[in-house]
Parts: sequence; C-alpha cells; structure tokens
Amino acid sequence: MASLRDVKRAPIGIGDDAAALLCSPSATLLVTTDMLIEGVHFDLTTTDLTSLGWKAAAVNLSDIAAMGGVPRFCLTALGIPRILTVEQVGDFYRGFNACIGKHGTVLVGGDTCSSRKGLVISVTVLGEADKKHVVTRSGSRPGDLLYVTGTLGDSGAGLELLKSGSGVKGQGSGKKTNTGSSKLIEKHLRPVPRVAEGRKLALSGVASAMIDVSDGLSSDLGHLCAQSGVGAEVFAGQIPLSKELRSAKGLKRQPLIYALSGGEDYELLFTVPREKVKKLNTMRMSATQIGIVTRARTMLLIDERGQGRPLTATGYDHFRSVDRRGSVR
Amino acid sequence: MASLRDVKRAPIGIGDDAAALLCSPSATLLVTTDMLIEGVHFDLTTTDLTSLGWKAAAVNLSDIAAMGGVPRFCLTALGIPRILTVEQVGDFYRGFNACIGKHGTVLVGGDTCSSRKGLVISVTVLGEADKKHVVTRSGSRPGDLLYVTGTLGDSGAGLELLKSGSGVKGQGSGKKTNTGSSKLIEKHLRPVPRVAEGRKLALSGVASAMIDVSDGLSSDLGHLCAQSGVGAEVFAGQIPLSKELRSAKGLKRQPLIYALSGGEDYELLFTVPREKVKKLNTMRMSATQIGIVTRARTMLLIDERGQGRPLTATGYDHFRSVDRRGSVR
Repeated sequence: MASLRDVKRAPIGIGDDAAALLCSPSATLLVTTDMLIEGVHFDLTTTDLTSLGWKAAAVNLSDIAAMGGVPRFCLTALGIPRILTVEQVGDFYRGFNACIGKHGTVLVGGDTCSSRKGLVISVTVLGEADKKHVVTRSGSRPGDLLYVTGTLGDSGAGLELLKSGSGVKGQGSGKKTNTGSSKLIEKHLRPVPRVAEGRKLALSGVASAMIDVSDGLSSDLGHLCAQSGVGAEVFAGQIPLSKELRSAKGLKRQPLIYALSGGEDYELLFTVPREKVKKLNTMRMSATQIGIVTRARTMLLIDERGQGRPLTATGYDHFRSVDRRGSVR
Repeated sequence: MASLRDVKRAPIGIGDDAAALLCSPSATLLVTTDMLIEGVHFDLTTTDLTSLGWKAAAVNLSDIAAMGGVPRFCLTALGIPRILTVEQVGDFYRGFNACIGKHGTVLVGGDTCSSRKGLVISVTVLGEADKKHVVTRSGSRPGDLLYVTGTLGDSGAGLELLKSGSGVKGQGSGKKTNTGSSKLIEKHLRPVPRVAEGRKLALSGVASAMIDVSDGLSSDLGHLCAQSGVGAEVFAGQIPLSKELRSAKGLKRQPLIYALSGGEDYELLFTVPREKVKKLNTMRMSATQIGIVTRARTMLLIDERGQGRPLTATGYDHFRSVDRRGSVR
C-alpha cells in the first residue's frame, strides 16, 4: 500500500484537469508510457482482466526499474469496449492496484473513454532516481561483464502453453495443469518488475548500463549494445533457465530459444565493470553472468565448445558459424 | 521552438527505458494524460493527420493551462494501423510538434506499436506550476463572477459543417468554402490551448477556480460547480459567440446550443471573487463575464427577460422554466 508520505506528495487527487504532485527537489524525474492494444499485445482468451491489470502496471514499473528509479505515481488511460462489464473493469484495476501497491506507487489520474474495437490501455509511470545514480542503456564499455536477474524464457514458454490450451486462463480456472506449466504461465501473466534490484544496482554504482528484457534477450541486448556503441559475447550455457522451462512438456522449441527471443520476462539485463564485480557479489542479488562486453560492434552467441554464432535481434542464426573476431567460418 | 534551457532539463533523450528530466525544485508537477481513438474521438474523413497531431497536443496542453501551469515535457504513445503510411505518421508529428513548439514543450519519449483496428493516440503532458498558484476546479465560492476566454461553440459548429460536407477536410483542400465556415472548422481542427491566459490568471491570483471547456459549457461548468460545492447562473445573452458562428449558414441548431453543449472549444472557464474583478480588468485579457456563482447547487440559464431554465450537462431544458431560486414555474 502507498505510505502516507506518498499520498501527501500528491496534494490534488484524481478529478481535476491534471494531477498536481510534489517531487523530491533533489531527484531526477523519470517518465515512461506504454500502450497495450487488444489483439496486438494481449488476447482476452489467454488472460483474465485481473492479470492484465497487473501486467499493464508491471511493464511500466519495469521501465522505471531499468533506470534505477523508484516508481512514485502513475496514470492510466483506458479505451473500453461496450462488451466489457463494470465488474471486468473493476477486475482490471484490482490487478493494476495490486501491482503498483507492492511498490508504493500511487494512481493519481487518467482518462477513461469508450472504444469501438477492443480494449486499449495506456499507462504512464513517473519515478524518481537520485541525480547521480540514473542508469541508462549507454554506459557499457568493452570488458564489462554482462549479467541478468532471475531466469529467462519462462514468459515466452508460458504464452505458448496458454495459446496451445495446455495452460489455464489466469488463476482459479478449473482446468488441470501441472505445477511447472503453471509457473511458466504465471510468469507470463503476472511478471514481477525488478524494482528493488534496479534500485540496488543503481545506488551501489555497480551497473554501467541497464535495460529490462521486454522483447527477448537478443533484442534488448541489441538495444543496449547499440546505445553503448559496443558488442557482446553471450555464453549460451550460462543463460539462466528455470527448471520449469527445462522440463516443460509440449513446447515447440528448445528452452534456449525462448530465452533469446521469447520476450516479456521483465528481468534486468545489466553490465558491470570488472573492478565492481566483487561489490556485486557481496550484494546477495539473484543475478547470473551470461557474457562479456566487446569492442567489436557485433553480438555473438558462444556455444559450449567455444564456437560463436551471430546473435541477431530475433534469436541466433542456426546456419552461420563465426570465429570470435566476427569472421564467418 | 524549445529553448536551450528546456532541452537541458531533459538530460537523457528519447530511446532509453524512461525519459529522465530535471524539474524545478520549487514547482508543483502537473501531469495529464488523454486517449484519442479513431472512430470515437476523431474520424480521418474529417481531419487530416497534421491537424490531428496538433489537436492531440492541444487538448493535453489545455489541461495544463487550466491548472495555471506551463507545459514542459510530453510523451506520446501511438497505436498505428498498417493502412497509415510513414508520411502520414510524419504529418501527425509535424502537427504535434508545431503545437508543442509554440509553448516550448519538449517531446521526451513514448511508445509506438501496431494497431489492427484504427489509430490510437495517447498523450501525456508534464507541466509545472508555482506551488502557491495551482488553480483547481474546487475553489469557487458563492458570489464569485463566472468568466470564459474567447468565444464558445465555434468548434462544435465547425464539426457539424465538416460532417455535412459544407467544410474542407483540413487545410489546403481544393474545395471552396466561405471564410466564416473556414474559421469555425479551423477552430475545431486546430484549437489553440490558452496556456498564456491560464498562467496569467494563476500567477495574478485572480481565478478562484478554473477548468477548460472540452465537453461544452454546460458539462464543464457542471464539473466546476460539483467540485466547488456551488451552483451558477449563466446569462444566455452574455455568452460570447463569434460573428462567424452567429452568421453561419447550414447549421441545424441555434448558435447558443453549440456554445452550451458543442464542446472542444478549449477555452478557459474560470471564476473570480468580486474584489479581484478590478485586477482582472487591468490584465487586458480576452475574457467575458457570463454569470455568477450561487449558493444553491443548481445551474440556471437566465434569458434576456430574466427568466431562468435549468441548465443540464447536455444543454438547457427547453421545456422547463424555473424562477431564480430554483422552483419550477
């Protein structure tokens, strides 16, 4: 729940032309906005409204986390089709509020309108970061080590299980499913934004660059490399895969593929200068080293035999093998 | 164009997980978000993309103006259907940037995604107001005088002309139209947010409450009265109507009806305590007194004979006549 302190910082509540907020004078303000459209980003046959509300909040909180900030305030804009009931809109906000409440984030305003063609959700989150501790995508340097929090690929695999009907729709459905599948589906429907981890990484000064994994490791690492002007080598065998993903049945592809291009994991991908690795190791954070930052502006996936393949934004190229200086073999 | 000072205040530009901004430590932060959906809020047969971009910015800047703030930063989230060309998206941003540029507001980020069913636009604007000079909807007191900037009803009439085919689609169309109609249509397609006026009214301490006229005078006055816990009497003969509206041909209803319930004028409706009227009059502002704030929590429209009729959120009731204490005659 929001603390009294947070509520006081929003002196004028919902219902005026704009929300009026008091920000910390010493902080940098962070702002992010994301749009989710029915039929593009979600499908009401594979999610319940409460989970959707949670996720709409989580994906935006994750952006603030990836900058090392604390999410403070948020606004929603909903385009609601007639087919949705008041109860369903209530369910959406129940999930939304559950997610922001866990992080002390306060809903301060928004817009509700009708939509003729499906549900449209736009969420804006305002966060604060210490001026000297904003972590961008552009600070990586060759030689830095590449880390990721948690495990990757669960969400993409969970979505596939949902689509194939192997999973349950949201929670509380009567359908049977095994525990492993449930965990993958849960990770897809209700991702947990890594706010505390992002904050720790920023305040400690350990992370030189950071991004959240929303599109899949290969794409998001691509963004980080492009904005830092560097490349990377990723060690396939070190990418953290959950035991549920490794043992899942009914998946069409190998676990690694979901990690590389499944997306929507909302884990944090970050780089650490070598001299700060010792400090990271004292921080008791669930993070795994998966690669290194290189000077060559290419991304390579290194297999267990040390052989590299080009890693592209949609996954790795099965058909090309290159040496570690980037030459095609 | 944005001043260097503003650009410096957005130290990290578009392309990271969130925009990072420096706010004035002494200011109250204002935030507003609005969603516009094709087929609900706009129709691409009656607007061009450049005008649409302008308007998407203007309606949000108007919300900041209505709080007495200065719009500083904005973010856009667009859901773009395949049918739209890159040039059309460019046109949208041309209009959007033209509008925000006039107010020194800087686009600092956003989200672009595909939409299967029509264009969806969500805009968030961040503004700043002096802590002691935020004007809300709730400060009106009985006896205050009611004012509005500019003229009312032009936008609603302009929309009707556009729909009936009497107007031009956007600017530069080859179709002939008379100057009066063009001005009404221009007011609908490219409303001018009253940022300077809102700021002056706030800083001078003259306005006790303020709202922008987005839904029509009757609705927005209803919001202001409800939140201030007051009522109002509006003098029909004093409502400012442009000469273009008064002389327009081909309109289905009387000019006054467009002023009361047409909406989308984006003028400022505000109340002024009697002792501050003198100060307002020295401010050389294009504003007209149209009524008074009353203790009775009802809204009345007073005709030229002094007879009152209940004013409801959708206009006035043709069939009921009441005395000025609210009794139905």
